Amino acid sequence: MKESTPATAAAPDLAARIAAGEERALARAMTLIERADAASDELLKALRPRTGRARVIGVTGSPGSGKSTLTDVLIATYREAGDRVGVVAIDPSSPFSGGAILGDRIRMMRWHDDSGVFIRSMATRGQLGGLAAATLQMVALLDGAGFDHVIVETVGVGQSEIDIVGAADTTVLVLTPGGGDGVQAFKAGIMEIADVYCINKADLPGADRMRQDVRGALDLAMPLDGAWRQPIVATVATTGSGVDDLLARVAAHHDHLAARGLLQERLRRRVRAEVTALLGAALRSAWESRQEQAVTDILAGKTTPLETVASLWHEP
Amino acid sequence: MKESTPATAAAPDLAARIAAGEERALARAMTLIERADAASDELLKALRPRTGRARVIGVTGSPGSGKSTLTDVLIATYREAGDRVGVVAIDPSSPFSGGAILGDRIRMMRWHDDSGVFIRSMATRGQLGGLAAATLQMVALLDGAGFDHVIVETVGVGQSEIDIVGAADTTVLVLTPGGGDGVQAFKAGIMEIADVYCINKADLPGADRMRQDVRGALDLAMPLDGAWRQPIVATVATTGSGVDDLLARVAAHHDHLAARGLLQERLRRRVRAEVTALLGAALRSAWESRQEQAVTDILAGKTTPLETVASLWHEP
Repeated sequence: MKESTPATAAAPDLAARIAAGEERALARAMTLIERADAASDELLKALRPRTGRARVIGVTGSPGSGKSTLTDVLIATYREAGDRVGVVAIDPSSPFSGGAILGDRIRMMRWHDDSGVFIRSMATRGQLGGLAAATLQMVALLDGAGFDHVIVETVGVGQSEIDIVGAADTTVLVLTPGGGDGVQAFKAGIMEIADVYCINKADLPGADRMRQDVRGALDLAMPLDGAWRQPIVATVATTGSGVDDLLARVAAHHDHLAARGLLQERLRRRVRAEVTALLGAALRSAWESRQEQAVTDILAGKTTPLETVASLWHEP
Repeated sequence: MKESTPATAAAPDLAARIAAGEERALARAMTLIERADAASDELLKALRPRTGRARVIGVTGSPGSGKSTLTDVLIATYREAGDRVGVVAIDPSSPFSGGAILGDRIRMMRWHDDSGVFIRSMATRGQLGGLAAATLQMVALLDGAGFDHVIVETVGVGQSEIDIVGAADTTVLVLTPGGGDGVQAFKAGIMEIADVYCINKADLPGADRMRQDVRGALDLAMPLDGAWRQPIVATVATTGSGVDDLLARVAAHHDHLAARGLLQERLRRRVRAEVTALLGAALRSAWESRQEQAVTDILAGKTTPLETVASLWHEP
């Protein structure tokens, strides 16, 4: 793909092409976001008023939990209903710092001829604090481009990924029997942000026990009156068993949010998270270039931490 | 205690009184830090060039692991050697938002007549992002006041507490047999920052098994040549069994750092962490008051996340 026009000049045109459903324009916009190109900010400005229509689903689980297979089944089911589906997959284990990765290529091929499906993978290496911002921008892009469902798929480890999946309308936590997944989820704080629990590979031994453990832990938390009571669904993604139930629960959670007027708040929460992530990245970068001299001066009693903060950041 | 002078006016005088070893002045300074009073910044400025002498030890472990008993045994042992010991204990479960808590009072009483021991407890409620900054300032205060050892005792849960104990020269992770402590530690990411592992209540069943598990996990990590190989010590804090071994390992880690010229870097790391924490708190506060209008404007396509970041924060 050759593009001689500068990215910034291309932004307004790109927004129109994306709104018209042009897939190559969408791919180009994704690359701008991934590179943290300032043109993506302008581009999204044009699309922002069109956002808030997609149903954003976070799918998280440990490697090997089968969440990619599950995502594929979700895509197929939504497509059967005629809905358009966008996917942002975050892969922390990928050795590539950007662009398509193996799993992505395989899935890309499967949906290659279907313009109703758009999949983008993002490796976490080299992204650092910018990962959350980039992911949220990709979600806004797919939302503004008119996709009915946007799935964010991520391995649920680390605060940054919890922040990302927590920004979805509905978060699905995929667990598998054995392997200490349940314990891991509870300890990592990911349990608290899930709206739907999916015990995948439910044909393996230990699935019933796991369901009881999760139920017991959830009941301990004692939800408030009127609060969403997280369902536990058993699936076998490879055979499609239980997937209809999972989809029904995801839809029910969406209805729950809609009935309480909470969907707009979820959209606003994503924007807040995006600004917070950008702010944190800008600050880290400014501080990192100045910190060694500042630390030396503080230790010498020449300046103080508060004076350093004031010199780094002037409240408007 | 009546004080009619404003806190800011009292700061220089306070620094002199602290340097002279006056305990009430130290307690007053701790309160200024806990209240995030700007006078504490000035006060520490005067003491900062005196810092870097104390050995800072982080002691962390889940509730009930016996780390408070262990800390008390450490205090007693250091006192026998004639060393002065300062302790900052962080208690997330305390229902008090500040000041002394029950455990603190009991320990205070034990060391009441000993001016060589100073203990301050801090409840985490209402502290939020300011907790790390306040703790690091208390450590700097005790260091500048001439204490030979400063112990930071905290329940090892959550990123903020990991940041705190990670800022010590030597971090001791206290585990107990059974109860899934080992699994929890590995999952929570605290395992990686510990320099010495202490299996306390080692007279309980499962202690040997736990030692093997921890050793196995550490060996998997394959330390680099010349890196510190984390020792595993078995203790029974209530009888004092194994405590000498623990102290020897802590001292050996200090020697390891000193031999490689890393102690100064640890001191600088604490100052960096202090500024980072203050910066984050200042930013959160500014953003929180403006965010609802900003989110509305972004969604309307009137402004963008990057423009919002620029308006919140002007790079100097």
